[in-house]
Amino acid sequence: MMTKDFWHNAKIAVMGAGSWGTMLAHIVAEHCREVRLWTRSEEHAAAINSTKTNAKYLGEFRLRENITALSDIGRVHERGLDVVIWALPSHVCREQMRAAATFYSGSELVLHATKGIEDGTLHRISQIIREELPLARIGVISGPNLAHEVARGDPAGTVVASAFDEVLEAGCELLTGDRLRVYSSHDVIGVEWAGSLKNILAIAAGAADSLKLGWNSRSLLISRGLVEMVRFGLAQGAEESTFLGLAGLGDLLATSSSPLSRNYRVGLKVIAGEKLETVLKSVGGVAEGVRTAGIVRRYAEKHSIPMPITTVVDQFLQGELDARGAIQALMSRPGGRDYHSKNGFTF
Amino acid sequence: MMTKDFWHNAKIAVMGAGSWGTMLAHIVAEHCREVRLWTRSEEHAAAINSTKTNAKYLGEFRLRENITALSDIGRVHERGLDVVIWALPSHVCREQMRAAATFYSGSELVLHATKGIEDGTLHRISQIIREELPLARIGVISGPNLAHEVARGDPAGTVVASAFDEVLEAGCELLTGDRLRVYSSHDVIGVEWAGSLKNILAIAAGAADSLKLGWNSRSLLISRGLVEMVRFGLAQGAEESTFLGLAGLGDLLATSSSPLSRNYRVGLKVIAGEKLETVLKSVGGVAEGVRTAGIVRRYAEKHSIPMPITTVVDQFLQGELDARGAIQALMSRPGGRDYHSKNGFTF
Repeated sequence: MMTKDFWHNAKIAVMGAGSWGTMLAHIVAEHCREVRLWTRSEEHAAAINSTKTNAKYLGEFRLRENITALSDIGRVHERGLDVVIWALPSHVCREQMRAAATFYSGSELVLHATKGIEDGTLHRISQIIREELPLARIGVISGPNLAHEVARGDPAGTVVASAFDEVLEAGCELLTGDRLRVYSSHDVIGVEWAGSLKNILAIAAGAADSLKLGWNSRSLLISRGLVEMVRFGLAQGAEESTFLGLAGLGDLLATSSSPLSRNYRVGLKVIAGEKLETVLKSVGGVAEGVRTAGIVRRYAEKHSIPMPITTVVDQFLQGELDARGAIQALMSRPGGRDYHSKNGFTF
Repeated sequence: MMTKDFWHNAKIAVMGAGSWGTMLAHIVAEHCREVRLWTRSEEHAAAINSTKTNAKYLGEFRLRENITALSDIGRVHERGLDVVIWALPSHVCREQMRAAATFYSGSELVLHATKGIEDGTLHRISQIIREELPLARIGVISGPNLAHEVARGDPAGTVVASAFDEVLEAGCELLTGDRLRVYSSHDVIGVEWAGSLKNILAIAAGAADSLKLGWNSRSLLISRGLVEMVRFGLAQGAEESTFLGLAGLGDLLATSSSPLSRNYRVGLKVIAGEKLETVLKSVGGVAEGVRTAGIVRRYAEKHSIPMPITTVVDQFLQGELDARGAIQALMSRPGGRDYHSKNGFTF
């Protein structure tokens, strides 16, 4: 256990000044003398430093004074870092980490807050970190954390997962605050897969809402969707209980309900008859769930893991099924036992 | 296994012509030649028979022709029944069952669709049935089933739980339909307790929405609330996995989100500063969660089961805490492991 003093004086950087990265820097800055916030754009860094806001992503939200934005990665690492938190979109992680690798001594604790799976390799972000950075003590931050709601001061919870207790300690000490509770876990695989799989169901939830289905249908979708997430996660080596906590169920609920979620909006619009390519352009940025649905469906078919909702979401995104066909495909399956545990300790 | 023909000719009654009882009669009538629907009021029975609607509870929804409403309980039981489905409010169950006991031969399969716990005794409805009716083959129907959404034809799922396979078979054969999927379970205790405990969290969810808290907070509340439900359920002899299925999580989601839920409306109004007694009068009927919160809090304190959200809900209903105090009490607790399984295979 490190002392409060240690954390106060620790050298900390957040890599990526999007909405959640910036919010994480703000939260950490409550506990530390100085937090460095890296953004690739010199202009963006200058604007953050001069206005003490991140107007591009967090509007007028006032950042703590002890945050310094930097675009020069060498300056971010000047005199070494104790803790680095990566918060970039999944598709740029590998390339950016590779470019930064030379600055690491190996003693750093590294956390990431990216939800996604790498195309082709199916690697999780923590695996990419292990492959690209010369260090071992890695962890993940994940949960129902819509940045603008945290900014507003709504109570929220998050999960830090790592195989290393010192990484869990860093996460808890640096992220716990008035309005943020931190729960810990050793199941990195489960937390990372949960964060990716839930995006598939967010698309389905958006579609259901577009059809004006009510709470019975939404509850059925989420309950049975969670069963699928557990099933797939177990096949990846995750622990069942992770999916039932904040990083699983919790994140699933937030992402499937918020019209701010890109995946949710994709479901909403595709069911209304828009072409997938048009929709993807209009929601801007990446809707991870679209890619994940395809990846997971193919893997599940190959390994005979029953994933009826994922399959229907992918078929529907690929134009193989329309809305009515999708519902029929799901509702005509035979009933069964309600919830299976891998341990089979009940029915 | 009985034949389709057996079910088609089975003699079936639904006791109670509220919205869900009537809807159940309608669903069963798809599979059976005749369904008898009991209501205490002669007028109500006559209106249902002449209009083939239940205007009082289901508006203009058109009931199947082979439903006969009866107010004379002797006629309901004429020539004996194979299956009886009870669908009355919890507080009248014991008295009505006691009055009907004389009509039962003991060979009937009995299901109930009532969510609630008896005042004082803490008995579940299936226990009351066993105490009042001279039969053993009992089951429960529970899940996210808002009657007006089922009437509208939205896809929905429900759970039938019983220790007896012939009761599960009856439930599946009689209730499965186009728009209703039936899942089965042997965990009667879990399904009944889940249906009661979720009402406490519906009050908390209403309060959170009244404070305009966002999706992070709601996800935190529901995820951690589910952990409490599991904890209390285990102490009652329930199975953990029941709480993660449709009758647990699924029902929790529907009840915590629908402004049609009385419990939700109680939370909404009390936090806005209205006195509990005034609120209870204005929502009409019974808000089971208010009573359940007190019962569960007292039991949990006596048996040292940590139930922080339930405790805060009860304190807040009793005027011991205001909204700010309630949130503070919850957020200032130390973090911990995210999700504990009783088996302790992960956290």
